[in-house]
Amino acid sequence: MTFSLYETLSIALDEDGVATLTLDRPGELNAFDLTMARELEKFFLTDARSDDVRAVVVTGAGRAFCAGMDLSREGNVFGLDESLAPSPEEFREHYDEPPYHDGLRDTGGRVTLAIYSLPKPVIAAINGAAVGIGATMTLGMDIRMASTEARIGFVFGRIGITPEAASSWFLPRIVGLPQALEWVYAADILTAEAALAGRLIRSVHAPEELLPAAQELARSFVRGRSPVALGLAKQMLYRHAGSAEPLEAHLSESLAVFWTSLADGKEGVAAFLEKRPATFTGKASELPRIV
Amino acid sequence: MTFSLYETLSIALDEDGVATLTLDRPGELNAFDLTMARELEKFFLTDARSDDVRAVVVTGAGRAFCAGMDLSREGNVFGLDESLAPSPEEFREHYDEPPYHDGLRDTGGRVTLAIYSLPKPVIAAINGAAVGIGATMTLGMDIRMASTEARIGFVFGRIGITPEAASSWFLPRIVGLPQALEWVYAADILTAEAALAGRLIRSVHAPEELLPAAQELARSFVRGRSPVALGLAKQMLYRHAGSAEPLEAHLSESLAVFWTSLADGKEGVAAFLEKRPATFTGKASELPRIV
Amino acid sequence: MTFSLYETLSIALDEDGVATLTLDRPGELNAFDLTMARELEKFFLTDARSDDVRAVVVTGAGRAFCAGMDLSREGNVFGLDESLAPSPEEFREHYDEPPYHDGLRDTGGRVTLAIYSLPKPVIAAINGAAVGIGATMTLGMDIRMASTEARIGFVFGRIGITPEAASSWFLPRIVGLPQALEWVYAADILTAEAALAGRLIRSVHAPEELLPAAQELARSFVRGRSPVALGLAKQMLYRHAGSAEPLEAHLSESLAVFWTSLADGKEGVAAFLEKRPATFTGKASELPRIV
Repeated sequence: MTFSLYETLSIALDEDGVATLTLDRPGELNAFDLTMARELEKFFLTDARSDDVRAVVVTGAGRAFCAGMDLSREGNVFGLDESLAPSPEEFREHYDEPPYHDGLRDTGGRVTLAIYSLPKPVIAAINGAAVGIGATMTLGMDIRMASTEARIGFVFGRIGITPEAASSWFLPRIVGLPQALEWVYAADILTAEAALAGRLIRSVHAPEELLPAAQELARSFVRGRSPVALGLAKQMLYRHAGSAEPLEAHLSESLAVFWTSLADGKEGVAAFLEKRPATFTGKASELPRIV
Repeated sequence: MTFSLYETLSIALDEDGVATLTLDRPGELNAFDLTMARELEKFFLTDARSDDVRAVVVTGAGRAFCAGMDLSREGNVFGLDESLAPSPEEFREHYDEPPYHDGLRDTGGRVTLAIYSLPKPVIAAINGAAVGIGATMTLGMDIRMASTEARIGFVFGRIGITPEAASSWFLPRIVGLPQALEWVYAADILTAEAALAGRLIRSVHAPEELLPAAQELARSFVRGRSPVALGLAKQMLYRHAGSAEPLEAHLSESLAVFWTSLADGKEGVAAFLEKRPATFTGKASELPRIV
Repeated sequence: MTFSLYETLSIALDEDGVATLTLDRPGELNAFDLTMARELEKFFLTDARSDDVRAVVVTGAGRAFCAGMDLSREGNVFGLDESLAPSPEEFREHYDEPPYHDGLRDTGGRVTLAIYSLPKPVIAAINGAAVGIGATMTLGMDIRMASTEARIGFVFGRIGITPEAASSWFLPRIVGLPQALEWVYAADILTAEAALAGRLIRSVHAPEELLPAAQELARSFVRGRSPVALGLAKQMLYRHAGSAEPLEAHLSESLAVFWTSLADGKEGVAAFLEKRPATFTGKASELPRIV
């Protein structure tokens, strides 16, 4: 397949459908600016939704993963429209319309909402500094792997702003509420080891081994698997990590098992019984509706 | 007391009220079929609700805990009615009625909803292979203990279906969201040690020591305790693990403390002050309503 | 500033705005009675809200932190009005009015709701026995540090009552659902090491080093920081640890980033770019409304 052309990102796709997305402004330590924000959102909402893409690994070019928001912008440094003064009620009702969509919505949150809603595995390969939005953008990814060189900081408090990128939902669910509070209060830079001890990171790797390990893990998730079953499983785990009762999960899962049992699940069971590899035909772009 | 007769289960009750429920199809590695599904649901909704039962330990006969769904069934292998085509809205409104109750609801979810809603401690003693529904049924239990021989697999992805048994609610709350995603994506078989490292399992035991240890832990939870206080505590922890605000917990707890302070709590405090054992008279079958 | 006078509490404020609140009934091992309940609630709802207070450390006088509810009270030991018999629906609608507000609401829960809603860091320095409400009151604090002498017990089950102080919301989010269930069922006294292993406690300290370490951690959270950014971050982490979807976090965070970007965040970014310390002027008593 052919991907869109991006100024700040480069993309490669391997034979198993694992896309490697590289934040590619190495001269600026891959700092996050409004162009990168729009391009990341576009990638996860369009290109990554192609059925040719089965999983995504995100890493940074050069020695940083993403050094955070580019703070050198003129005017409102976050790109927000300072003439607005919305009530929470007004914003909640119209957040996806002008002038709020582009003038008020946190750009990092638009990116992480696009990432986590992709019904495919997404793995962060944190190769160096991941600071501010460079740290929080990885929270919308399913798994974080790091190089020994990684340095991760939820440093918002140092410049008088708050965590963003929907991190107040993701971070407590990844590391627990007390660790989330402490890291946000401390606003320090964490080593890879500290991030591992705090369960932010799945595993720590030698720098040259990080990206191959992340890609291999992604491949192991998708080779010989049904994209439909994988996509529904991801949707359900995120949704019911936040839902009130197990009954909610039961209702979604009943529909998911039902629809897969008529399609890729039927093939999967037959292949299992016949001791042959399954040939799945379902598409992640055509998931049945389960909620 | 006398329990119902079951084809696939055997049950023993000790003097402390600890019921040991054995999945008992050892020739089939205790594979889960529709009979076992119905019998497990029945046990937890009826026999286990007897006030003679104070806690339940679940294990498997022979060398397996439960090798998963019996995939040899004719027709829809999950026992679902393939003529149905419900919308999520239609199903949500009528899930507990025909034809959805028996034709569409995930059988594993019916079982785990029955298990977790029992207001008494339930402990899984995972003695061997626990695969598919054999793994997810334990998530509706409060605590999982394992033998060194245990092998646990959330392997749904290998046959083109999704996790079930309300596991998309339970698993992230037991092991955290990133570990839940990775295990479901990987669809691998975990050793007892890996499951312990991932916090799925409370403790690992020599095979011959597992069941006695689980039974002794269960006894320690119920000896000299109020079944009402225990039942309300379990209800509240599950409910408020999923509720939005601490205020919700405060409202339930206020009612729970109030009602127990008039009954078993009054006796408990008196016994404590008089340095004598308490004699509790409340029944788990008659819990006050707190939500 | 001058604090209210309290019978059961003593308070000291350092130059960084870190208030140390000492539970101060050492002759009674700082047992929690109705006076202490009212005073704790008052402190966190009034004195602690002063902009002169930037963070709070809570500890106990003498060798205990808080030995639990004083069970020697005449009449209903929990101070509840035994003539009431509310339905959950009636109580939910009127919980904050007479006769429910003072006659039915769990006093521990009134305290923890006041603690967690303070938009400033709160750290428990658990110097000795913390039993019953002595344990659960710390769950509404952000971080728990303990001395090697600490002994922590969720012992409600031993006297026929249930956990309270909104602990059924806090505890599963701090230690995970299975650990919460086990500790509540077991109703045992935990050593500092066991509490650390179960992730209840952040760190264990020599007795004489505990309070200075907690105060120093609190100082590190507030020195040179914006009280507004800190307060909003705390509000969002608690709220979205319980909200259903990342979108909810995104909406709050968008407003938080927007309002801080017009005020302390503008100063913070300017100071960062000019390599000088920031001078923040925002007040925690005047947080913008983000939900």
